[in-house]
Amino acid sequence: MKAIAYLGPEGSFSQQAALKQLEALPGDPGCLQPYPTIAAILTAVDRGEASLGIVPAENSIEGSVNITLDLLANELNLYIQKEIILAITHHLLSYTPSLVQIHTVLSHPQALAQCRHFLQEKLPQAELMETSSTSEAVRRLDPAVPGIAAVASWHSHLCYQVPVVAENIGDFSPNQTRFLAVAKEPDLRQNTTKTSLIISMEKDRPGSLYEALAAFAKENINLTRIESRPAKKELGNYIFFIDCQAGYDHPGLQRALTALAPRTSIKNLGSYGELT
Amino acid sequence: MKAIAYLGPEGSFSQQAALKQLEALPGDPGCLQPYPTIAAILTAVDRGEASLGIVPAENSIEGSVNITLDLLANELNLYIQKEIILAITHHLLSYTPSLVQIHTVLSHPQALAQCRHFLQEKLPQAELMETSSTSEAVRRLDPAVPGIAAVASWHSHLCYQVPVVAENIGDFSPNQTRFLAVAKEPDLRQNTTKTSLIISMEKDRPGSLYEALAAFAKENINLTRIESRPAKKELGNYIFFIDCQAGYDHPGLQRALTALAPRTSIKNLGSYGELT
Repeated sequence: MKAIAYLGPEGSFSQQAALKQLEALPGDPGCLQPYPTIAAILTAVDRGEASLGIVPAENSIEGSVNITLDLLANELNLYIQKEIILAITHHLLSYTPSLVQIHTVLSHPQALAQCRHFLQEKLPQAELMETSSTSEAVRRLDPAVPGIAAVASWHSHLCYQVPVVAENIGDFSPNQTRFLAVAKEPDLRQNTTKTSLIISMEKDRPGSLYEALAAFAKENINLTRIESRPAKKELGNYIFFIDCQAGYDHPGLQRALTALAPRTSIKNLGSYGELT
Repeated sequence: MKAIAYLGPEGSFSQQAALKQLEALPGDPGCLQPYPTIAAILTAVDRGEASLGIVPAENSIEGSVNITLDLLANELNLYIQKEIILAITHHLLSYTPSLVQIHTVLSHPQALAQCRHFLQEKLPQAELMETSSTSEAVRRLDPAVPGIAAVASWHSHLCYQVPVVAENIGDFSPNQTRFLAVAKEPDLRQNTTKTSLIISMEKDRPGSLYEALAAFAKENINLTRIESRPAKKELGNYIFFIDCQAGYDHPGLQRALTALAPRTSIKNLGSYGELT
Protein backbone atom coordinates (compact mmCIF):
# COMPACT_ATOMS: atom_id res chain seq x y z
CA MET A 1 0.00 0.00 0.00
CA LYS A 2 1.45 3.32 -1.05
CA ALA A 3 0.56 6.07 1.42
CA ILE A 4 0.73 9.77 0.63
CA ALA A 5 1.52 11.58 3.87
CA TYR A 6 0.04 15.05 4.46
CA LEU A 7 -0.27 17.51 7.32
CA GLY A 8 -3.47 16.56 9.08
CA PRO A 9 -6.04 16.34 10.39
CA GLU A 10 -8.53 16.27 7.52
CA GLY A 11 -9.50 19.60 6.01
CA SER A 12 -6.01 21.13 5.80
CA PHE A 13 -4.55 22.98 2.83
CA SER A 14 -1.97 20.21 2.78
CA GLN A 15 -4.77 17.67 2.22
CA GLN A 16 -6.03 19.75 -0.71
CA ALA A 17 -2.53 19.69 -2.20
CA ALA A 18 -2.33 15.93 -1.59
CA LEU A 19 -5.67 15.45 -3.37
CA LYS A 20 -4.29 17.32 -6.40
CA GLN A 21 -1.25 15.07 -6.40
CA LEU A 22 -3.43 11.97 -6.03
CA GLU A 23 -5.59 12.92 -9.03
CA ALA A 24 -2.49 13.32 -11.16
CA LEU A 25 -0.95 9.95 -10.35
CA PRO A 26 -1.46 7.12 -12.84
CA GLY A 27 -2.41 3.59 -11.77
CA ASP A 28 -2.87 2.75 -8.10
CA PRO A 29 -2.05 5.97 -6.31
CA GLY A 30 -2.36 4.65 -2.74
CA CYS A 31 -4.21 6.37 0.06
CA LEU A 32 -3.91 9.67 1.87
CA GLN A 33 -2.56 9.44 5.40
CA PRO A 34 -2.61 12.41 7.82
CA TYR A 35 0.44 13.13 10.01
CA PRO A 36 0.57 15.59 12.92
CA THR A 37 3.67 17.59 11.93
CA ILE A 38 5.89 18.38 8.95
CA ALA A 39 8.75 16.57 10.70
CA ALA A 40 6.56 13.46 11.08
CA ILE A 41 5.68 13.51 7.34
CA LEU A 42 9.28 13.78 6.21
CA THR A 43 10.46 11.16 8.70
CA ALA A 44 7.73 8.76 7.48
CA VAL A 45 8.98 9.16 3.90
CA ASP A 46 12.60 8.72 5.02
CA ARG A 47 11.69 5.45 6.82
CA GLY A 48 9.66 4.12 3.88
CA GLU A 49 6.34 4.23 5.79
CA ALA A 50 4.99 6.63 3.14
CA SER A 51 5.92 6.68 -0.52
CA LEU A 52 5.30 10.41 -0.89
CA GLY A 53 5.10 13.31 1.55
CA ILE A 54 3.29 16.57 0.81
CA VAL A 55 4.79 19.54 2.69
CA PRO A 56 4.33 23.32 2.44
CA ALA A 57 7.56 25.04 1.36
CA GLU A 58 6.78 28.67 0.62
CA ASN A 59 3.96 31.19 0.82
CA SER A 60 3.65 34.28 -1.36
CA ILE A 61 3.09 36.53 1.69
CA GLU A 62 4.82 35.02 4.67
CA GLY A 63 7.75 33.44 2.85
CA SER A 64 9.43 30.15 3.50
CA VAL A 65 8.21 27.44 5.80
CA ASN A 66 11.43 27.24 7.80
CA ILE A 67 10.95 23.78 9.28
CA THR A 68 10.50 22.23 5.81
CA LEU A 69 13.63 23.92 4.45
CA ASP A 70 15.70 23.09 7.53
CA LEU A 71 14.74 19.40 7.49
CA LEU A 72 15.40 19.02 3.75
CA ALA A 73 18.73 20.83 4.11
CA ASN A 74 20.16 19.30 7.25
CA GLU A 75 18.55 16.19 8.57
CA LEU A 76 17.18 14.10 5.71
CA ASN A 77 18.09 13.13 2.16
CA LEU A 78 14.83 13.32 0.24
CA TYR A 79 14.02 14.28 -3.35
CA ILE A 80 11.39 16.61 -4.73
CA GLN A 81 9.04 14.89 -7.19
CA LYS A 82 6.61 17.69 -7.94
CA GLU A 83 5.66 21.19 -6.87
CA ILE A 84 1.98 21.92 -6.24
CA ILE A 85 0.76 25.53 -6.19
CA LEU A 86 -2.41 26.14 -4.18
CA ALA A 87 -4.44 29.36 -3.89
CA ILE A 88 -5.02 30.15 -0.21
CA THR A 89 -8.03 31.95 1.28
CA HIS A 90 -8.36 32.24 5.04
CA HIS A 91 -11.61 32.54 6.98
CA LEU A 92 -12.40 32.98 10.65
CA LEU A 93 -14.38 30.00 11.96
CA SER A 94 -16.07 29.99 15.35
CA TYR A 95 -19.16 28.92 17.29
CA THR A 96 -19.12 32.45 18.77
CA PRO A 97 -20.62 34.82 16.18
CA SER A 98 -19.62 38.12 17.84
CA LEU A 99 -16.00 39.15 17.24
CA VAL A 100 -15.75 41.11 20.51
CA GLN A 101 -16.47 37.95 22.48
CA ILE A 102 -13.60 36.03 20.93
CA HIS A 103 -10.67 35.83 23.34
CA THR A 104 -8.50 33.20 21.62
CA VAL A 105 -7.63 32.53 17.98
CA LEU A 106 -6.04 29.21 17.04
CA SER A 107 -4.19 28.45 13.83
CA HIS A 108 -0.94 27.44 12.19
CA PRO A 109 1.65 30.20 12.77
CA GLN A 110 1.87 30.97 9.03
CA ALA A 111 -1.89 31.44 8.79
CA LEU A 112 -1.86 33.74 11.84
CA ALA A 113 0.96 35.76 10.24
CA GLN A 114 -0.92 36.00 6.95
CA CYS A 115 -3.94 37.53 8.71
CA ARG A 116 -1.94 39.89 10.96
CA HIS A 117 -3.79 43.05 9.88
CA PHE A 118 -7.24 41.59 10.39
CA LEU A 119 -6.35 40.09 13.76
CA GLN A 120 -4.78 43.34 15.03
CA GLU A 121 -7.67 45.50 13.87
CA LYS A 122 -10.70 43.35 14.55
CA LEU A 123 -9.51 41.11 17.37
CA PRO A 124 -6.90 43.13 19.30
CA GLN A 125 -8.03 41.51 22.55
CA ALA A 126 -7.51 37.95 21.35
CA GLU A 127 -4.64 35.65 22.30
CA LEU A 128 -3.05 33.92 19.33
CA MET A 129 -2.32 30.26 19.95
CA GLU A 130 -0.32 28.11 17.57
CA THR A 131 -1.56 24.78 16.32
CA SER A 132 0.18 22.28 14.09
CA SER A 133 -2.15 22.96 11.14
CA THR A 134 -5.15 25.12 10.27
CA SER A 135 -7.47 22.11 10.32
CA GLU A 136 -6.16 21.05 13.74
CA ALA A 137 -7.28 24.49 14.97
CA VAL A 138 -10.80 23.87 13.65
CA ARG A 139 -10.91 20.32 14.98
CA ARG A 140 -10.35 21.69 18.50
CA LEU A 141 -13.29 24.09 18.45
CA ASP A 142 -16.12 22.97 20.69
CA PRO A 143 -19.65 24.44 20.70
CA ALA A 144 -19.62 24.09 24.51
CA VAL A 145 -16.54 26.33 24.89
CA PRO A 146 -17.35 29.82 23.59
CA GLY A 147 -14.91 32.62 22.71
CA ILE A 148 -12.48 30.58 20.62
CA ALA A 149 -11.99 30.94 16.84
CA ALA A 150 -9.78 29.36 14.20
CA VAL A 151 -8.19 30.73 11.03
CA ALA A 152 -8.68 28.08 8.37
CA SER A 153 -9.93 27.20 4.88
CA TRP A 154 -13.40 26.82 3.43
CA HIS A 155 -12.53 23.14 3.03
CA SER A 156 -12.13 22.97 6.85
CA HIS A 157 -15.47 24.72 7.33
CA LEU A 158 -17.11 22.05 5.18
CA CYS A 159 -15.24 19.22 6.93
CA TYR A 160 -16.05 20.22 10.50
CA GLN A 161 -19.25 22.24 10.00
CA VAL A 162 -18.01 25.16 12.14
CA PRO A 163 -19.67 28.48 11.14
CA VAL A 164 -17.68 31.10 9.22
CA VAL A 165 -17.85 34.38 11.19
CA ALA A 166 -15.58 36.44 8.88
CA GLU A 167 -14.72 35.64 5.27
CA ASN A 168 -11.49 36.20 3.41
CA ILE A 169 -9.47 37.73 6.25
CA GLY A 170 -5.99 37.46 4.68
CA ASP A 171 -3.76 40.56 4.47
CA PHE A 172 -2.95 40.43 0.81
CA SER A 173 -4.03 38.73 -2.34
CA PRO A 174 -3.18 36.70 -4.27
CA ASN A 175 -2.09 34.36 -1.52
CA GLN A 176 -0.53 31.18 -2.83
CA THR A 177 1.32 28.35 -1.14
CA ARG A 178 3.80 26.12 -2.86
CA PHE A 179 3.79 22.54 -1.65
CA LEU A 180 6.43 19.96 -2.46
CA ALA A 181 5.82 16.27 -3.01
CA VAL A 182 8.96 14.50 -1.78
CA ALA A 183 10.13 10.88 -1.93
CA LYS A 184 13.12 8.84 -0.84
CA GLU A 185 14.52 8.38 -4.34
CA PRO A 186 14.65 10.75 -7.30
CA ASP A 187 12.17 9.90 -10.07
CA LEU A 188 14.04 10.29 -13.34
CA ARG A 189 11.26 8.91 -15.56
CA GLN A 190 9.16 12.03 -15.61
CA ASN A 191 9.48 15.21 -17.59
CA THR A 192 11.25 17.69 -15.32
CA THR A 193 11.49 21.43 -15.80
CA LYS A 194 12.97 22.69 -12.53
CA THR A 195 15.77 21.70 -10.19
CA SER A 196 16.25 22.68 -6.53
CA LEU A 197 19.73 23.01 -5.06
CA ILE A 198 21.16 24.04 -1.71
CA ILE A 199 24.49 25.80 -1.71
CA SER A 200 26.50 26.89 1.32
CA MET A 201 27.97 30.34 1.75
CA GLU A 202 30.67 30.39 4.40
CA LYS A 203 31.34 33.58 6.33
CA ASP A 204 34.93 33.67 5.10
CA ARG A 205 33.91 33.15 1.45
CA PRO A 206 31.26 35.79 0.83
CA GLY A 207 31.74 35.54 -2.95
CA SER A 208 30.50 31.96 -3.25
CA LEU A 209 26.86 32.88 -3.92
CA TYR A 210 28.01 35.24 -6.65
CA GLU A 211 30.15 32.46 -8.18
CA ALA A 212 27.17 30.12 -8.14
CA LEU A 213 24.86 32.69 -9.77
CA ALA A 214 27.55 33.40 -12.38
CA ALA A 215 27.76 29.70 -13.27
CA PHE A 216 24.01 29.59 -13.96
CA ALA A 217 24.02 32.92 -15.81
CA LYS A 218 26.81 31.63 -18.06
CA GLU A 219 24.55 28.73 -19.09
CA ASN A 220 21.52 31.03 -19.54
CA ILE A 221 19.62 29.21 -16.83
CA ASN A 222 16.99 31.36 -15.12
CA LEU A 223 16.72 31.19 -11.36
CA THR A 224 13.14 31.34 -10.11
CA ARG A 225 13.96 31.54 -6.40
CA ILE A 226 16.84 32.22 -4.06
CA GLU A 227 16.11 31.82 -0.38
CA SER A 228 18.63 32.19 2.40
CA ARG A 229 18.53 30.34 5.71
CA PRO A 230 20.99 30.48 8.57
CA ALA A 231 23.51 27.63 8.52
CA LYS A 232 22.78 27.37 12.28
CA LYS A 233 26.40 27.92 13.19
CA GLU A 234 26.89 31.63 13.78
CA LEU A 235 25.63 34.88 12.33
CA GLY A 236 27.04 35.33 8.83
CA ASN A 237 26.94 31.68 7.72
CA TYR A 238 24.09 30.98 5.33
CA ILE A 239 22.78 28.30 3.06
CA PHE A 240 20.82 29.18 -0.06
CA PHE A 241 17.91 27.33 -1.61
CA ILE A 242 18.12 27.92 -5.34
CA ASP A 243 15.45 26.85 -7.82
CA CYS A 244 16.40 26.97 -11.48
CA GLN A 245 14.47 26.48 -14.70
CA ALA A 246 16.28 23.39 -15.92
CA GLY A 247 15.39 19.71 -15.68
CA TYR A 248 17.89 17.06 -14.66
CA ASP A 249 18.84 16.31 -18.28
CA HIS A 250 19.55 19.96 -19.17
CA PRO A 251 23.17 19.94 -20.43
CA GLY A 252 23.82 23.49 -19.14
CA LEU A 253 22.76 22.45 -15.63
CA GLN A 254 25.23 19.58 -15.63
CA ARG A 255 28.00 21.93 -16.80
CA ALA A 256 27.14 24.53 -14.13
CA LEU A 257 27.13 21.88 -11.38
CA THR A 258 30.42 20.43 -12.62
CA ALA A 259 31.99 23.90 -12.68
CA LEU A 260 30.84 24.65 -9.13
CA ALA A 261 31.62 21.27 -7.57
CA PRO A 262 35.27 21.89 -6.63
CA ARG A 263 34.59 25.20 -4.88
CA THR A 264 31.07 25.08 -3.49
CA SER A 265 29.20 22.61 -1.31
CA ILE A 266 25.99 21.68 -3.19
CA LYS A 267 23.09 19.44 -2.18
CA ASN A 268 20.78 18.47 -5.06
CA LEU A 269 17.14 18.18 -3.94
CA GLY A 270 16.07 16.80 -7.30
CA SER A 271 14.41 17.79 -10.56
CA TYR A 272 10.65 17.95 -10.98
CA GLY A 273 7.66 19.47 -12.74
CA GLU A 274 4.82 21.68 -11.61
CA LEU A 275 1.26 20.59 -10.86
CA THR A 276 -1.19 23.51 -11.16
CA MET B 1 13.65 63.93 26.29
CA LYS B 2 15.08 61.37 23.94
CA ALA B 3 13.42 57.99 24.36
CA ILE B 4 14.92 54.72 23.19
CA ALA B 5 12.06 52.37 22.31
CA TYR B 6 12.48 48.64 22.94
CA LEU B 7 10.30 45.55 22.91
CA GLY B 8 8.91 45.31 26.42
CA PRO B 9 8.00 44.65 29.05
CA GLU B 10 11.14 44.86 31.19
CA GLY B 11 13.45 41.89 31.15
CA SER B 12 13.44 41.25 27.38
CA PHE B 13 16.47 40.55 25.21
CA SER B 14 15.53 43.75 23.40
CA GLN B 15 15.96 45.68 26.67
CA GLN B 16 19.43 44.15 27.08
CA ALA B 17 20.31 45.35 23.56
CA ALA B 18 18.89 48.79 24.36
CA LEU B 19 21.03 48.95 27.53
CA LYS B 20 24.14 48.23 25.43
CA GLN B 21 23.16 51.02 23.05
CA LEU B 22 22.47 53.37 25.98
CA GLU B 23 25.92 52.75 27.49
CA ALA B 24 27.58 53.55 24.19
CA LEU B 25 25.81 56.89 23.65
CA PRO B 26 27.70 60.06 24.59
CA GLY B 27 26.07 62.92 26.56
CA ASP B 28 22.41 62.67 27.59
CA PRO B 29 21.25 59.39 26.12
CA GLY B 30 17.59 59.70 27.13
CA CYS B 31 15.52 56.98 28.75
CA LEU B 32 14.44 53.48 27.82
CA GLN B 33 10.78 53.13 26.93
CA PRO B 34 9.08 49.73 26.49
CA TYR B 35 6.65 49.17 23.61
CA PRO B 36 4.35 46.17 23.17
CA THR B 37 5.25 45.20 19.58
CA ILE B 38 7.93 45.67 16.93
CA ALA B 39 5.41 47.57 14.80
CA ALA B 40 4.72 49.95 17.73
CA ILE B 41 8.46 50.62 18.18
CA LEU B 42 9.04 51.45 14.54
CA THR B 43 5.88 53.56 14.31
CA ALA B 44 6.98 55.54 17.41
CA VAL B 45 10.32 56.30 15.73
CA ASP B 46 8.57 57.23 12.49
CA ARG B 47 6.28 59.68 14.37
CA GLY B 48 9.16 61.19 16.36
CA GLU B 49 7.87 59.89 19.71
CA ALA B 50 11.14 58.00 20.14
CA SER B 51 14.54 59.05 18.85
CA LEU B 52 15.79 55.48 18.48
CA GLY B 53 14.10 52.11 18.20
CA ILE B 54 15.80 48.81 19.05
CA VAL B 55 14.39 45.90 17.06
CA PRO B 56 15.52 42.29 16.52
CA ALA B 57 16.41 41.62 12.88
CA GLU B 58 18.03 38.22 12.65
CA ASN B 59 18.84 35.18 14.74
CA SER B 60 21.64 32.73 14.04
CA ILE B 61 19.29 29.73 14.33
CA GLU B 62 15.82 30.79 13.35
CA GLY B 63 16.79 33.37 10.72
CA SER B 64 15.17 36.68 10.00
CA VAL B 65 12.54 38.40 12.10
CA ASN B 66 10.06 38.80 9.27
CA ILE B 67 7.97 41.59 10.74
CA THR B 68 11.04 43.81 11.20
CA LEU B 69 12.22 43.25 7.64
CA ASP B 70 8.75 43.71 6.17
CA LEU B 71 8.14 47.00 8.01
CA LEU B 72 11.56 48.43 7.07
CA ALA B 73 11.08 47.36 3.45
CA ASN B 74 7.50 48.36 2.77
CA GLU B 75 5.80 50.61 5.24
CA LEU B 76 8.34 52.99 6.79
CA ASN B 77 11.41 54.99 5.80
CA LEU B 78 13.83 54.55 8.69
CA TYR B 79 17.61 54.35 8.85
CA ILE B 80 19.86 51.93 10.67
CA GLN B 81 22.23 53.65 13.11
CA LYS B 82 23.94 50.66 14.68
CA GLU B 83 23.82 46.89 14.83
CA ILE B 84 23.96 45.23 18.24
CA ILE B 85 24.87 41.54 18.53
CA LEU B 86 23.58 39.77 21.63
CA ALA B 87 24.32 36.22 22.80
CA ILE B 88 21.03 34.45 23.55
CA THR B 89 20.46 31.70 26.14
CA HIS B 90 16.94 30.44 26.78
CA HIS B 91 15.66 28.95 30.03
CA LEU B 92 12.32 27.46 31.06
CA LEU B 93 10.73 29.52 33.85
CA SER B 94 7.72 28.32 35.81
CA TYR B 95 6.11 28.19 39.25
CA THR B 96 5.43 24.50 38.48
CA PRO B 97 8.67 22.58 39.07
CA SER B 98 7.61 19.28 37.45
CA LEU B 99 7.86 19.24 33.64
CA VAL B 100 5.10 16.62 33.27
CA GLN B 101 2.62 18.97 34.94
CA ILE B 102 3.26 21.80 32.49
CA HIS B 103 0.42 22.03 29.96
CA THR B 104 1.18 25.41 28.37
CA VAL B 105 4.40 27.13 27.31
CA LEU B 106 4.35 30.84 26.53
CA SER B 107 7.00 32.77 24.61
CA HIS B 108 7.85 34.84 21.57
CA PRO B 109 7.48 32.64 18.44
CA GLN B 110 11.22 32.91 17.66
CA ALA B 111 12.15 31.70 21.14
CA LEU B 112 9.70 28.77 20.84
CA ALA B 113 11.23 27.89 17.46
CA GLN B 114 14.76 28.06 18.88
CA CYS B 115 13.86 25.52 21.58
CA ARG B 116 11.88 23.19 19.31
CA HIS B 117 13.87 20.04 20.16
CA PHE B 118 13.62 20.55 23.92
CA LEU B 119 9.90 21.32 23.76
CA GLN B 120 9.14 18.30 21.56
CA GLU B 121 11.17 15.89 23.69
CA LYS B 122 10.53 17.10 27.23
CA LEU B 123 7.12 18.77 26.94
CA PRO B 124 5.31 16.95 24.10
CA GLN B 125 1.99 17.43 25.94
CA ALA B 126 2.30 21.22 26.20
CA GLU B 127 0.45 23.79 24.11
CA LEU B 128 2.68 26.49 22.69
CA MET B 129 1.18 29.96 22.98
CA GLU B 130 2.71 33.02 21.35
CA THR B 131 3.40 36.20 23.25
CA SER B 132 4.75 39.49 21.96
CA SER B 133 8.09 39.06 23.75
CA THR B 134 9.87 36.57 26.02
CA SER B 135 9.52 38.90 29.01
CA GLU B 136 5.79 39.35 28.36
CA ALA B 137 5.52 35.55 28.69
CA VAL B 138 7.23 35.67 32.10
CA ARG B 139 5.19 38.67 33.24
CA ARG B 140 2.01 36.65 32.71
CA LEU B 141 3.04 33.74 34.93
CA ASP B 142 1.07 33.62 38.15
CA PRO B 143 1.92 31.46 41.20
CA ALA B 144 -1.83 30.87 41.64
CA VAL B 145 -2.20 29.34 38.15
CA PRO B 146 -0.06 26.19 37.91
CA GLY B 147 0.99 24.30 34.78
CA ILE B 148 2.21 27.27 32.74
CA ALA B 149 5.84 27.96 31.81
CA ALA B 150 7.71 30.59 29.79
CA VAL B 151 10.81 30.42 27.60
CA ALA B 152 12.90 33.48 28.47
CA SER B 153 16.26 34.89 29.54
CA TRP B 154 18.12 34.80 32.84
CA HIS B 155 17.57 38.59 32.87
CA SER B 156 13.79 37.91 32.91
CA HIS B 157 14.22 35.40 35.74
CA LEU B 158 15.98 38.09 37.79
CA CYS B 159 13.39 40.75 36.86
CA TYR B 160 10.29 38.74 37.76
CA GLN B 161 11.71 36.25 40.28
CA VAL B 162 10.09 33.26 38.56
CA PRO B 163 12.02 30.01 39.24
CA VAL B 164 14.11 28.43 36.47
CA VAL B 165 12.95 24.82 35.99
CA ALA B 166 15.27 23.93 33.08
CA GLU B 167 18.44 25.77 32.09
CA ASN B 168 19.85 26.40 28.64
CA ILE B 169 17.11 24.70 26.60
CA GLY B 170 18.04 26.10 23.17
CA ASP B 171 18.54 23.74 20.22
CA PHE B 172 21.94 24.93 19.09
CA SER B 173 24.77 27.07 20.23
CA PRO B 174 26.07 29.66 19.72
CA ASN B 175 22.74 31.44 19.54
CA GLN B 176 23.07 35.11 18.69
CA THR B 177 20.52 37.75 17.79
CA ARG B 178 21.31 40.82 15.78
CA PHE B 179 19.37 43.90 16.84
CA LEU B 180 19.19 47.12 14.84
CA ALA B 181 19.01 50.61 16.30
CA VAL B 182 16.95 52.66 13.85
CA ALA B 183 16.13 56.36 13.61
CA LYS B 184 14.15 58.67 11.35
CA GLU B 185 17.22 60.27 9.76
CA PRO B 186 20.55 58.79 8.73
CA ASP B 187 23.44 59.71 11.05
CA LEU B 188 26.38 60.57 8.82
CA ARG B 189 28.67 61.81 11.59
CA GLN B 190 29.73 58.43 12.84
CA ASN B 191 32.27 55.98 11.54
CA THR B 192 30.33 53.50 9.45
CA THR B 193 31.54 50.12 8.23
CA LYS B 194 28.42 48.47 6.83
CA THR B 195 25.51 49.44 4.61
CA SER B 196 22.12 47.72 4.29
CA LEU B 197 20.22 47.80 1.02
CA ILE B 198 16.99 46.32 -0.28
CA ILE B 199 16.82 45.38 -3.93
CA SER B 200 13.83 44.05 -5.81
CA MET B 201 13.91 41.02 -8.06
CA GLU B 202 10.96 40.89 -10.41
CA LYS B 203 9.69 37.55 -11.64
CA ASP B 204 10.31 38.58 -15.25
CA ARG B 205 13.89 39.74 -14.52
CA PRO B 206 15.46 36.81 -12.71
CA GLY B 207 18.97 38.08 -13.49
CA SER B 208 18.68 41.26 -11.42
CA LEU B 209 20.11 39.76 -8.23
CA TYR B 210 23.07 38.46 -10.21
CA GLU B 211 23.61 41.93 -11.72
CA ALA B 212 23.55 43.48 -8.27
CA LEU B 213 26.02 40.96 -6.86
CA ALA B 214 28.26 41.52 -9.88
CA ALA B 215 28.28 45.30 -9.26
CA PHE B 216 29.53 44.75 -5.70
CA ALA B 217 32.03 42.07 -6.72
CA LYS B 218 33.48 44.45 -9.32
CA GLU B 219 34.19 46.96 -6.53
CA ASN B 220 35.62 44.23 -4.25
CA ILE B 221 32.90 44.85 -1.67
CA ASN B 222 32.14 41.83 0.50
CA LEU B 223 28.52 41.00 1.20
CA THR B 224 27.93 39.75 4.74
CA ARG B 225 24.28 38.83 4.28
CA ILE B 226 21.71 38.22 1.59
CA GLU B 227 18.21 37.53 2.78
CA SER B 228 15.21 37.03 0.52
CA ARG B 229 11.64 37.93 1.43
CA PRO B 230 8.52 37.63 -0.69
CA ALA B 231 7.54 40.88 -2.40
CA LYS B 232 3.97 40.03 -1.24
CA LYS B 233 2.65 40.07 -4.80
CA GLU B 234 2.81 36.54 -6.14
CA LEU B 235 5.12 33.55 -5.88
CA GLY B 236 8.36 34.31 -7.71
CA ASN B 237 8.65 38.01 -6.82
CA TYR B 238 11.26 38.65 -4.13
CA ILE B 239 13.06 41.45 -2.44
CA PHE B 240 16.57 40.97 -1.08
CA PHE B 241 18.12 42.47 2.02
CA ILE B 242 21.81 42.89 1.29
CA ASP B 243 24.39 43.93 3.88
CA CYS B 244 27.78 44.95 2.56
CA GLN B 245 31.09 45.76 4.22
CA ALA B 246 31.32 49.36 3.11
CA GLY B 247 30.44 52.58 4.94
CA TYR B 248 28.48 55.39 3.30
CA ASP B 249 31.67 57.19 2.18
CA HIS B 250 33.17 54.11 0.49
CA PRO B 251 33.81 55.23 -3.13
CA GLY B 252 33.21 51.74 -4.52
CA LEU B 253 29.79 51.60 -2.86
CA GLN B 254 28.76 54.84 -4.52
CA ARG B 255 29.95 53.51 -7.90
CA ALA B 256 28.10 50.23 -7.44
CA LEU B 257 24.87 52.04 -6.49
CA THR B 258 25.21 54.44 -9.43
CA ALA B 259 25.77 51.52 -11.81
CA LEU B 260 22.70 49.67 -10.53
CA ALA B 261 20.33 52.64 -10.25
CA PRO B 262 18.97 52.64 -13.83
CA ARG B 263 18.12 48.93 -13.83
CA THR B 264 17.32 47.92 -10.26
CA SER B 265 14.99 49.31 -7.62
CA ILE B 266 17.12 49.95 -4.50
CA LYS B 267 16.14 51.20 -1.04
CA ASN B 268 19.07 52.31 1.14
CA LEU B 269 18.51 51.51 4.83
CA GLY B 270 21.64 53.41 5.85
CA SER B 271 25.25 52.91 6.88
CA TYR B 272 26.29 52.04 10.42
CA GLY B 273 28.80 50.39 12.72
CA GLU B 274 28.62 47.40 15.02
CA LEU B 275 28.26 47.45 18.79
CA THR B 276 29.57 44.24 20.35
